[in-house]
Amino acid sequence: MSDVQHTTGKSLGSLGSAGVGSGLRRRDFLMRTLAIGGSGLMLATMKAWGVDLASVRTSPPRLSGSGRGKRVVILGAGLAGMTAAYELSKFGYACEIIEARGFAGGRCQTARRGFELTELGGERQVCNFDEGQYINHGPWRIPFCQQSTLHYTREFGVPLELFNNDNDAAYVYKENIDGPLAGKRLRQFEIKADMRGYTDELFAKTLRAGKLNDQLSEGDRALLLDYLVHEGYLNKKDLDYKGTTARGYKTYPGVQSGVQTDPLQFGDLLKSKLGNIYRSTNDIEQQKTMLQAVGGMDHVAKAFERRTKKMIRYNTEVVSLRNTDSGVVLQCKDTRTGAGRTVKGDFCLCTIPLSVLKQIDTDFSDDFKDAMQVAYEPVGKLGVQMKRRFWEEDHFIYGGHIQTDIKGATLISLPSTNWQGQKGTLLSYYNFGAMAAQVSAMSLKERTDFGLAAGEKVFPGQYRDSAESSFSVAWHRVKYNLGGWADWSEAGRRTAYPRLLKGEGRTLLAGEHMSHLNGWQAGAIESAWHQIEQLHARLSA
Amino acid sequence: MSDVQHTTGKSLGSLGSAGVGSGLRRRDFLMRTLAIGGSGLMLATMKAWGVDLASVRTSPPRLSGSGRGKRVVILGAGLAGMTAAYELSKFGYACEIIEARGFAGGRCQTARRGFELTELGGERQVCNFDEGQYINHGPWRIPFCQQSTLHYTREFGVPLELFNNDNDAAYVYKENIDGPLAGKRLRQFEIKADMRGYTDELFAKTLRAGKLNDQLSEGDRALLLDYLVHEGYLNKKDLDYKGTTARGYKTYPGVQSGVQTDPLQFGDLLKSKLGNIYRSTNDIEQQKTMLQAVGGMDHVAKAFERRTKKMIRYNTEVVSLRNTDSGVVLQCKDTRTGAGRTVKGDFCLCTIPLSVLKQIDTDFSDDFKDAMQVAYEPVGKLGVQMKRRFWEEDHFIYGGHIQTDIKGATLISLPSTNWQGQKGTLLSYYNFGAMAAQVSAMSLKERTDFGLAAGEKVFPGQYRDSAESSFSVAWHRVKYNLGGWADWSEAGRRTAYPRLLKGEGRTLLAGEHMSHLNGWQAGAIESAWHQIEQLHARLSA
Repeated sequence: MSDVQHTTGKSLGSLGSAGVGSGLRRRDFLMRTLAIGGSGLMLATMKAWGVDLASVRTSPPRLSGSGRGKRVVILGAGLAGMTAAYELSKFGYACEIIEARGFAGGRCQTARRGFELTELGGERQVCNFDEGQYINHGPWRIPFCQQSTLHYTREFGVPLELFNNDNDAAYVYKENIDGPLAGKRLRQFEIKADMRGYTDELFAKTLRAGKLNDQLSEGDRALLLDYLVHEGYLNKKDLDYKGTTARGYKTYPGVQSGVQTDPLQFGDLLKSKLGNIYRSTNDIEQQKTMLQAVGGMDHVAKAFERRTKKMIRYNTEVVSLRNTDSGVVLQCKDTRTGAGRTVKGDFCLCTIPLSVLKQIDTDFSDDFKDAMQVAYEPVGKLGVQMKRRFWEEDHFIYGGHIQTDIKGATLISLPSTNWQGQKGTLLSYYNFGAMAAQVSAMSLKERTDFGLAAGEKVFPGQYRDSAESSFSVAWHRVKYNLGGWADWSEAGRRTAYPRLLKGEGRTLLAGEHMSHLNGWQAGAIESAWHQIEQLHARLSA
Repeated sequence: MSDVQHTTGKSLGSLGSAGVGSGLRRRDFLMRTLAIGGSGLMLATMKAWGVDLASVRTSPPRLSGSGRGKRVVILGAGLAGMTAAYELSKFGYACEIIEARGFAGGRCQTARRGFELTELGGERQVCNFDEGQYINHGPWRIPFCQQSTLHYTREFGVPLELFNNDNDAAYVYKENIDGPLAGKRLRQFEIKADMRGYTDELFAKTLRAGKLNDQLSEGDRALLLDYLVHEGYLNKKDLDYKGTTARGYKTYPGVQSGVQTDPLQFGDLLKSKLGNIYRSTNDIEQQKTMLQAVGGMDHVAKAFERRTKKMIRYNTEVVSLRNTDSGVVLQCKDTRTGAGRTVKGDFCLCTIPLSVLKQIDTDFSDDFKDAMQVAYEPVGKLGVQMKRRFWEEDHFIYGGHIQTDIKGATLISLPSTNWQGQKGTLLSYYNFGAMAAQVSAMSLKERTDFGLAAGEKVFPGQYRDSAESSFSVAWHRVKYNLGGWADWSEAGRRTAYPRLLKGEGRTLLAGEHMSHLNGWQAGAIESAWHQIEQLHARLSA
């Protein structure tokens, strides 16, 4: 129970100095390696030190020379376009960003009071949340390993806070599973502790019964047994798993001692397949630690916008694009007045989503146009402002995701901010593919009803009753996006992707679709980094 | 790679209404259960819903009647004492808190610029951190399940933020282990992915080889196999574990695709025993989600202090305590002037740590005094202000704990706040027991040197070089605490604890030592809740 990790103490004197000595020696060794061994050896040495993220891109390309005032027309003031304009203009290029919307940021949007959205063929929606409440209906989390995004949040001073992507106390609710756990509300820590505990027990007993004697040495068997006992909270003597206080208490300890809960039945767990809610460790992008911008992810976009605002022509749609021998010529249209305008440049960086770009009049070659036929993921989100944070107050769940198997509402995500505040805005569904398409076909009210009905299953008597206001998006129905992100097939990656990456004439493409980080802000930023290097090489040549 | 959790879509229409219906039905069922079945059945029903934390205490006791102005002398203005005074005074008791220090909060302290501490026999220490930098050298994290603490942060509006207690990207550095991983710096996600991956592979192959056919049905074997494949990122066909992108990349994906890392060797991992850095799921108090007070944990203490300030007599030591038939009489001493003072009350609630109380002149019976002989844990912490957050900037570690086996410095904990700020204050060691005793015997400078030498092993060339200022505490050497927390033995819990809980004469004891949540703020608060109920029952009788 106590807040303690025991160590056993021995003499310190020698350790103190040994600590210094061996630290220095190791550094010296690295330095010597660098001096005499070349980069191969250095890399091997660093790897031995666990520098497994050495290849993560952390900063924009260092260009040499100058842009010499050459004109770059950038299409789209999303993160890719603004990244390119910000970096290229620092380097002496004259950039102009053509943006169809009246605001910058692309998909990096946050819905808060007054935010307007009208989907194609949809009703006009004005966000009606209370001041301070918001939903990130675009990107909402930043992985620790996406240092390109974090490069700019740091450079621009965008305040960040932790995003709770992994809460063991969050519920799991599945109704379309076999056995008695169907329709039961469980906590993730129950499932993890029991599933691993029973599995460890079974394997430990198999080991002890000698069934792996021909495969593992006696020493390794003993080590593996110790590992299983420790991981699974097994009884060391008989190797039984009989639950653990790590999965909660019948009587929670306080002045009295605690009484632990009974584990679920192994057979029921197997039948339920609930063990598939977790893996050995999360996928690296979803791993601890994830971050978010304080007050809404659009603060990332706004930080870029403040630095590129003078270059942005808002409310300007691209009507046509022509490559010439010496540059590009674009016909544009003011979305408010309809007035036409010709924009010329030495080069074009187009960040318009392929789903939209393929509908624009261009003189791209047929093979380039063919390559642009990439599927875009239908994506829907529904944010609901709740008048009371019942998930914290009554259920002790502070952020994280509730997993369900309710089609179209498999994820209910709780806010990672304003802890213990009066109200809170949760993500009531986050759906993809066919389900997103179906849910998005509903009216706004029906979408909300759908989300509330799903949440009501997990929080009966509380979810619908607490709902005050909602905001939904279906990205595949948003005019200038037509999808959540590019959904590359393996075949597309082999042929279309490299073709598009090369660009056409004086035009290069950027955006999350021109990366392997689809749907992430880092994809947009790193594609811009890549392409401004290509652009500079071409214009310097 | 993409930010997606796919669902397959079917018809929605029926689901939407079914959702509502079944939610309502279930609620109705609960209501009916409550009406006709009694509490036993209700509890069983709730349990089936995963209400495994139903017994967590969430609010102070509801007392009936009134305190009718009776005088309660409370010894110690720590969380226990202030909780009691706050609740009792609301209920009509006249409380006076005797506090030896010039400030309230007990161990709930935060060292920031100007904070002073002089340990017994030690040098005077004045914290010299920059404005905004601090270390919680007392309690530093609040578990999601300790709702008693969270009751007050909510009632008092103390702003909270996430405490990152579990960062898979944090390093593990162990030098006193067997095999080639000794002295290597690894990330926790490498160890989790590989150790579980290989173990799952071995078990999966054992299963497929038919070695558990006599113990598990064919169906269960198939389900277990699927589980192992999924958990361990195994190749479904041959059941091999060959690493996963969840453990990092050789080439991190960006515009190019990613190249995954090679796993460590299973034999090396077994030999190293590094698998013991994690379990199936963390102990519940250490589990996600943990929280901390924004700006320093002492904001919790200060929030209590603002509400009880008028009742607190600061700088007042208890010299003696006498129970009389009708109340208590205490002799106190002003710590600045030495002036004596007699304090009388109808009842006394003593929250002084037993390590200190046993040295005070009392008329407690011999068996009560015997019961007070509880061991207190030596605990040391060292905070170091670093001029640069190299762990974030160069190593992409955002909070969490670095685990080592360096005696006396097995935990280096990174700050969970001010992400990407210029400077950061980390916890350079957190030691207990014999090691805490040894490290605390050093001079302040030697403690810092010790902490820096340990950190330098994990971050060679960066740790010592970045250090600007430090602050250390050894709680067993702090005059009014003499230990980190009560370290109850099993034997002590059986006899001494219940004896102490009953109190003596007109005196009851409270504090973390009078709970099973030792070392936690919740222990102090809940013991106060328990004892004010006893006190009220006694005074009402």
